Amino acid sequence: MRMRRHLGLALGAAALLALGLGGARAGDGDWASYGHDQSNTRFSPLDQISTSNVKDLRVAWAFPLGVLEGQESTPLVIGDTMYVTSPRGPKYVYALDARDGTIRWKYAPEMPADVSAAVCCGSVNRGAAYADGRLFVSRLDGYLVALDAKTGKQLWKTKVSDYKKGDDMTSPPTIVKNLVVTGYAGGEYATRGSITAFDQATGKEVWRTYTTPAPGEKGSETWPSTETALHGGGDAWLVGSYDPKLNLIYYGTSNPAPWAAGQRGPDSSNYGRNTNLYTSSTLALDGDTGKIVWYYQQTPYDAWDYDGVNEKVLVDLTVDGKSVPALMTADRNGYFYVLDRRNGHLLSADPFVHMTWSKGIAEDGRPIEVAGHRPMIDKWARDLCPSFYGGKNFPPTSYDPQTKLSYVPTFNLCMDEVGHKVAVPREGLFYLGTEFNCCYAGPGGNGGEFIAWDPVEKKKVWGIKEDMPFVGGALSTAGGLVFYGNMQGVFKAVDAKDGHVLWSFPTGSGISQGAITYEVDGRQYVAALSGRLVGPPGFAGALGAKISAAVPEGATMFVFALPAK
Amino acid sequence: MRMRRHLGLALGAAALLALGLGGARAGDGDWASYGHDQSNTRFSPLDQISTSNVKDLRVAWAFPLGVLEGQESTPLVIGDTMYVTSPRGPKYVYALDARDGTIRWKYAPEMPADVSAAVCCGSVNRGAAYADGRLFVSRLDGYLVALDAKTGKQLWKTKVSDYKKGDDMTSPPTIVKNLVVTGYAGGEYATRGSITAFDQATGKEVWRTYTTPAPGEKGSETWPSTETALHGGGDAWLVGSYDPKLNLIYYGTSNPAPWAAGQRGPDSSNYGRNTNLYTSSTLALDGDTGKIVWYYQQTPYDAWDYDGVNEKVLVDLTVDGKSVPALMTADRNGYFYVLDRRNGHLLSADPFVHMTWSKGIAEDGRPIEVAGHRPMIDKWARDLCPSFYGGKNFPPTSYDPQTKLSYVPTFNLCMDEVGHKVAVPREGLFYLGTEFNCCYAGPGGNGGEFIAWDPVEKKKVWGIKEDMPFVGGALSTAGGLVFYGNMQGVFKAVDAKDGHVLWSFPTGSGISQGAITYEVDGRQYVAALSGRLVGPPGFAGALGAKISAAVPEGATMFVFALPAK
Repeated sequence: MRMRRHLGLALGAAALLALGLGGARAGDGDWASYGHDQSNTRFSPLDQISTSNVKDLRVAWAFPLGVLEGQESTPLVIGDTMYVTSPRGPKYVYALDARDGTIRWKYAPEMPADVSAAVCCGSVNRGAAYADGRLFVSRLDGYLVALDAKTGKQLWKTKVSDYKKGDDMTSPPTIVKNLVVTGYAGGEYATRGSITAFDQATGKEVWRTYTTPAPGEKGSETWPSTETALHGGGDAWLVGSYDPKLNLIYYGTSNPAPWAAGQRGPDSSNYGRNTNLYTSSTLALDGDTGKIVWYYQQTPYDAWDYDGVNEKVLVDLTVDGKSVPALMTADRNGYFYVLDRRNGHLLSADPFVHMTWSKGIAEDGRPIEVAGHRPMIDKWARDLCPSFYGGKNFPPTSYDPQTKLSYVPTFNLCMDEVGHKVAVPREGLFYLGTEFNCCYAGPGGNGGEFIAWDPVEKKKVWGIKEDMPFVGGALSTAGGLVFYGNMQGVFKAVDAKDGHVLWSFPTGSGISQGAITYEVDGRQYVAALSGRLVGPPGFAGALGAKISAAVPEGATMFVFALPAK
Repeated sequence: MRMRRHLGLALGAAALLALGLGGARAGDGDWASYGHDQSNTRFSPLDQISTSNVKDLRVAWAFPLGVLEGQESTPLVIGDTMYVTSPRGPKYVYALDARDGTIRWKYAPEMPADVSAAVCCGSVNRGAAYADGRLFVSRLDGYLVALDAKTGKQLWKTKVSDYKKGDDMTSPPTIVKNLVVTGYAGGEYATRGSITAFDQATGKEVWRTYTTPAPGEKGSETWPSTETALHGGGDAWLVGSYDPKLNLIYYGTSNPAPWAAGQRGPDSSNYGRNTNLYTSSTLALDGDTGKIVWYYQQTPYDAWDYDGVNEKVLVDLTVDGKSVPALMTADRNGYFYVLDRRNGHLLSADPFVHMTWSKGIAEDGRPIEVAGHRPMIDKWARDLCPSFYGGKNFPPTSYDPQTKLSYVPTFNLCMDEVGHKVAVPREGLFYLGTEFNCCYAGPGGNGGEFIAWDPVEKKKVWGIKEDMPFVGGALSTAGGLVFYGNMQGVFKAVDAKDGHVLWSFPTGSGISQGAITYEVDGRQYVAALSGRLVGPPGFAGALGAKISAAVPEGATMFVFALPAK
């Protein structure tokens, strides 16, 4: 089932292109996974809505999520049912008739009153995962639950992590054969990351892989202090990808904790072996055992909060005339990485945003640091670009096999940062050891830019500058379109080839998550959640206050379609 | 200015009809007052959107109010600026570009933390009033404020009432020449109603008229107990109307307090002179002095919570071949009243909903009660229709001079009720003295119905049954259309002549307030607020829980238009 979907995507788009077919095949109308497919392409083969008719796109129906918070959920659509989660827990999971939003069932779990206490960046939820009639939802209180997709009945509930420590869950799990796999958050607290697999039918734990080593374990040599390794972060708080052919699960891991590198080893760019594995890394885990098959650490010995969690996009690229099974990630540290997903070998890494902290990648895969651009204990580093929001944050990219371009919502922010020695805090309290001036715009003064990136030519093809940072995630379609929204709430359809804005709609509140598209009864829909971020701008001082004041909080899903015939 | 607007409406529609003109004249594009005009017709002469093209209506833009609560605000549009209030205070007042929702300014007053403590039925706000460059906003904390309509700067702030007693304000004031006039809520608390006028320029109080008499004052003979008269309710919590030619202000007053009549006098339908003036009444006040020129008490000695506050619609009707300056009100008690607005003489009163408590109006203007249908102390009355929600509640009617019909959102609910003796409570605590089974549907089983009522022929012309009660308010336009929404959030355009539904849009949360329409740059818009009631269903037991569970809370304004040319 999952394999079929996965291959369906890969073949579907290619086949459609080759045959010039307009209609989508059965199943192609679904949006079955957070990233559309488990390759996280966020490309849909649907093409009813196209460059030529998108000007007629209109709101078909709307749905209120019922909770004011950052709306970061990606709805799923399976057949004619849409599943969407609200923030705060989620407080609600709704199953809706995907044609008009009629509620089929609602799941409103009881959650502890203090569940938002140790959530660094918004009590958000990014959506559910689906397999074989079950909906899997990660909860802020550290539980993973399985719901009957037909009725909303809770089938099982399993504890994954301890939210009181900061190990809350905000992202959907990953479907791996008969398993459901998830990480959790916590890099801003004194936590230890892990990725865990559960049996889909029973919720029973099958394996758990820690992302920082205990003393004596492999990788522990990269942590001079075992004390910090066990509080060392490296949390896989965003989504995973899965390649069923290689049976490899891909997750990114967060920054090490605390942010201040000087507390985790030598306060120097010459950190040697002290790389603090497996933080700010890409991990490939065996689908059956969870064993780490390979890793690639984008930011060894991270001192900037350059989380490595951004989604891993699995596509086959033609590099030097040869097809390579690639893994792409637009990293927080500002590099767009292309790896061989079989073994983690670096194929390329190029800055996709303005970058001051590093001037290239060395032979050993490590970024070459620019002198004076590493924050140290009591020693400010200034003009650090990108900022800790990264060149890109959670709002997802999309890869379009037609244009062979990645669409990336980027930040153009810089910061100053300094470390401080801090004690390991009581559970659930911030463990940063860092002071910062965050943030200010980089060259050009724009807060962000939505760009089209050619991962083979390794260059920006076009870009749309956005005044405000926190540009929303991307969706591309076989209709030749890319959709995204901005912090002011304007949802746009753009020509995937040249970035020409063909249509837009003002939703009034910010859009951060990527939109989805689906087809029911022969009609294609596009759904976008509007509701500006509440947590993340809180780190950005005066700029954050400006962002928060720009638009009201919101909680509405807008579903668009062409006029009914 | 105000007179011009008022006459503009009356003439505008007639002139347009006579001349067959399609375009609206300058000023006709505005929505300058809660009820469109101070006659509360909620009829707009705009006709670009019509029965023939309404099928193409689509969402032009949306705006999040930023506060989850019942969305009961009626936006104003003056020129190209829209003014809309959020609930909770209002927590926000927004001035928006009426073309696309771009924020021009925001007013976010500091409000006391306990401001929602003594608010019976939702911390709502129904909108602002406008005159001569000033926006007047009634606040939940008992203050009336004037804002500079261009900048949002607060010009003055005057205390009207004491919110800690339950005297909160939720409705826009009334513009009367150089005065701004307002009542306040409180009929569920031990309060005394009053209507007060303030100077628009300074906020200085000009006159105050109490709506229940102090001992020895005129009307005090209708209160056997002066103690209860001074805690007797009669609050003018909804909107007023104003006839500039007669210089008369019209307000309805609430139920007497406590609800249990037996505490306010004899526990009998033979209450004689003990009518408890001026509760559940229509009052006509002199525009300069506030003196009560005439009154008409719809429900003397009310025992059912049949508030008399529903809006008074001022139109000239042709009755028996003669034009009469009429005042119409679809009362909570189930009668549709037509009065001569010069003197309060009853022209007609006919049930517009299923009614069991009364079987007609006697010569003296009093309802003739049906035996056993008056709740008494410790004596249940059963099958009381309408319920205390009324035949109609605050969601407003609209009168269309083209069809000569009133469009009325009605309830089809019944209740059982009994009184209990209670002590006058501490300030800010409920003063009901009543127990009830509320509510259950009347004949047909539908919770409500949106009806067209002919006030001259005194009959229902058509109706659209709605499963859920709390049907939303009405808007009629020269385009031959009536707009309204329902509790499920479906916003509809209906043929004003025959009730045929021509178009609808699912907003996802409940719509209770009437929509507005306006024109900017030659384009007609229709704006509707979506966000289901939170407070009022709380009185309705299991039915209320069902209503609240039906749709999520919402906070979105949807603004519709035809496709741009």
